[in-house]
Amino acid sequence: MDLIARLRAGLPGEAILTDPDITGSYANDMASFCEAGTPAVVVLPRTVEQVQHIMRTATELRVPVVPQGARTGLSGAANASDGCLVLSLVKMDRIIEINPVDRIAVVEPGVINAVLSRAVNEHGLYYPPDPSSWEQCSIGGNIGTASGGLCCVKYGVTAEYVLGLDVVLADGRLLTTGRRTAKGVAGYDLTRLFVGSEGSLGIVVRAVLALKPEPPGQLALAAEFPSTAAACEAVCEIMARGHAPALLELMDRTSIRAVNAMAQMGLPDSTEALLLAAFDTPEPAADLAAVGALCTAAGATEVVPAETAAESDLLLQARRLTLTALEQVKSATMIDDVCVPRSRLAEMLDGTAAIAEKYGLTIGVCAHAGDGNTHPTVCFDAADPDESRRARASFDDIMALGLQLGGTITGEHGVGVLKKEWLARELGPVGLELQRGIKDVFDPLGILNPGKLF
Amino acid sequence: MDLIARLRAGLPGEAILTDPDITGSYANDMASFCEAGTPAVVVLPRTVEQVQHIMRTATELRVPVVPQGARTGLSGAANASDGCLVLSLVKMDRIIEINPVDRIAVVEPGVINAVLSRAVNEHGLYYPPDPSSWEQCSIGGNIGTASGGLCCVKYGVTAEYVLGLDVVLADGRLLTTGRRTAKGVAGYDLTRLFVGSEGSLGIVVRAVLALKPEPPGQLALAAEFPSTAAACEAVCEIMARGHAPALLELMDRTSIRAVNAMAQMGLPDSTEALLLAAFDTPEPAADLAAVGALCTAAGATEVVPAETAAESDLLLQARRLTLTALEQVKSATMIDDVCVPRSRLAEMLDGTAAIAEKYGLTIGVCAHAGDGNTHPTVCFDAADPDESRRARASFDDIMALGLQLGGTITGEHGVGVLKKEWLARELGPVGLELQRGIKDVFDPLGILNPGKLF
Repeated sequence: MDLIARLRAGLPGEAILTDPDITGSYANDMASFCEAGTPAVVVLPRTVEQVQHIMRTATELRVPVVPQGARTGLSGAANASDGCLVLSLVKMDRIIEINPVDRIAVVEPGVINAVLSRAVNEHGLYYPPDPSSWEQCSIGGNIGTASGGLCCVKYGVTAEYVLGLDVVLADGRLLTTGRRTAKGVAGYDLTRLFVGSEGSLGIVVRAVLALKPEPPGQLALAAEFPSTAAACEAVCEIMARGHAPALLELMDRTSIRAVNAMAQMGLPDSTEALLLAAFDTPEPAADLAAVGALCTAAGATEVVPAETAAESDLLLQARRLTLTALEQVKSATMIDDVCVPRSRLAEMLDGTAAIAEKYGLTIGVCAHAGDGNTHPTVCFDAADPDESRRARASFDDIMALGLQLGGTITGEHGVGVLKKEWLARELGPVGLELQRGIKDVFDPLGILNPGKLF
Repeated sequence: MDLIARLRAGLPGEAILTDPDITGSYANDMASFCEAGTPAVVVLPRTVEQVQHIMRTATELRVPVVPQGARTGLSGAANASDGCLVLSLVKMDRIIEINPVDRIAVVEPGVINAVLSRAVNEHGLYYPPDPSSWEQCSIGGNIGTASGGLCCVKYGVTAEYVLGLDVVLADGRLLTTGRRTAKGVAGYDLTRLFVGSEGSLGIVVRAVLALKPEPPGQLALAAEFPSTAAACEAVCEIMARGHAPALLELMDRTSIRAVNAMAQMGLPDSTEALLLAAFDTPEPAADLAAVGALCTAAGATEVVPAETAAESDLLLQARRLTLTALEQVKSATMIDDVCVPRSRLAEMLDGTAAIAEKYGLTIGVCAHAGDGNTHPTVCFDAADPDESRRARASFDDIMALGLQLGGTITGEHGVGVLKKEWLARELGPVGLELQRGIKDVFDPLGILNPGKLF
């Protein structure tokens, strides 16, 4: 009995896609330089029972399963392999509960991040994790890749908001982890194990998420610096003095010029680094004044605090346009995601500039500076094999630099296909052996997203 | 070659205790109703290499190892078994680094919680987790049991402050997990797996801890209620309105009377519940006024806001004395740790009162009300077999009630020996099987703290 027929026994016809023209469009996420194969079938379940049927079938037939959310990922973790079953969770998109007293939401994995954010806002609540793709990306994908965003410097990452999960295991059994309570320490933290596991341990079909009270609206400032070192000094001072910015972002010269070229933002071309800070505290103007003074002391040539929300949005616009602007520089971009201790941020930026020079490449950097999380973006001509090779080589140098500075190869984008050779280098042999051991406990047949992570 | 001789090959003489009069004093932590055996030897290493030698020896000779911190735990997780090797980490008590820019501390496991707290305060930093035993308990023990405390309602639990670990595995190999960076998603989150694992997966020998900026001093209020239901309604309102108290504690009538009897606090005996709230915000008086109004609306008969830090301390004194006061009621106490969604807190308190009545027992409850985390404390005469039996039975009823209300059997004290039968009930067979599978990956010989958790 073949795969499709077996799937049909527990799924409605419209949930099973086999037309190669259609299934081909599910081949990959948004990562560059990552191989992707052709799926045998794409399934779009709407219920937990359907997911269980799919996984039972995959286990019986030993078919590899690639779970997918909105495919906005940047590491190839959702890329298909040849002959795999793509399990897309996008149709499981219900918000089941929003509870202001317990400050939790219960959701299915296909809920779009921005949809959840707006829904909880209506109850005076706040779901902080805000990846750049928040209007497209799904909560299930956010959980799979342990997504971050701009607000992490104050509010932390996705992992800190996942209290409990329902997970369909490789063999189709249903596991419930964690809790609905504010605290709980009963047994090993399986919930956290699934966050960032990139679909390699099970299929998340429901999540209990922690919410925060909605903060006051934020107010931003922009500060221009004559060097990245001066901007990084300001970052260190801001954090060492105990400030709690809701975002603290840095753009390097290449990013500034790209944004200027695309959007005529009028940022002075002489600026070597732009720092953006925002506060959602009760008295943001006072916080901005204090942070502005620290920027000036660190050498900022100009400090522009917003006085209204509209002015803030305008200042932050430059940051929001950065990736799009860098994509216009050459035919292709490759975005990295190295995170270093913030005390090493200046070295990371200087080192990245040296790598760009070494390979004769344009590399723009924007960074969640408060977290030490840099996104060096290599701009290259994909039609030029030599430049492509250099782009790939520079990417490796950037990760090596991050590790050398006490950092990690991935702050928030994950490992996927893109960085799996590098994961072994970061974890070392003992860590890698234990990670593989855990994988075997959950997926003894190795059918869940094979070829990712390890 | 015997165990002691093998240990001597890699440890100085004074690090090995074999005198039964001394080793017997390492038999147990502070839990009631938990069996404890007699250790064959107690070792007190001072270096990572010594811990590695101990674990290599234990693996070669298949000797069970019971890791211990300051033995202030309340679930028997640190209790010895007959013939075991007790591995006490108390001598590894160095604070290796405090870094205000990266907002981290690097510590050995034997550092006392309060010692670390005061050390980071000197740098304008704050290590929030504050178990009641903070002057005695060690960071290693806090990590092992995933400790909580009063401040969790605002600042979260120990797990949220552990960024990375060095762990000596059962076979003596050294594993480094996690990171020094603010963010990082490279592979499965092994760090979090160790937090709360009660020494069953490896020996934590170093930890990278996240720190917060030191908040302003806090200001408290006390509110007296004619019923626990009214107090719980106030709790729900406070949290639903988006307030962020630094603590939100509830004492029931039994606790209030016990404190009055011991310390003549002058709390009216007619009070059925006392709620204590504190804020460490920039404008605590305004927050207290708003919360006081919510208490009054929920039926508080009296609301007393402190105006100074000294007044706050006085108000909070009643809460701090509760457990000591309840210990005077009868010859023994047994403290439980059930956490429910805060929306179910009133049902938990009413149900606990009904259980006390059913068994003819005195059960005082204090609760981290903002977290829904209750500590029902059964007061009984340990010399009376029937009352002891009823005490044990009431304890089981309380956990069953917690699970029925969507809660967990342990919010912050852990499973240890005390609740291991109940863990299986909370996790269910699928969860339990996976947890055991993980245990086998890390400890295939089963020498690490056997008989705990599962």
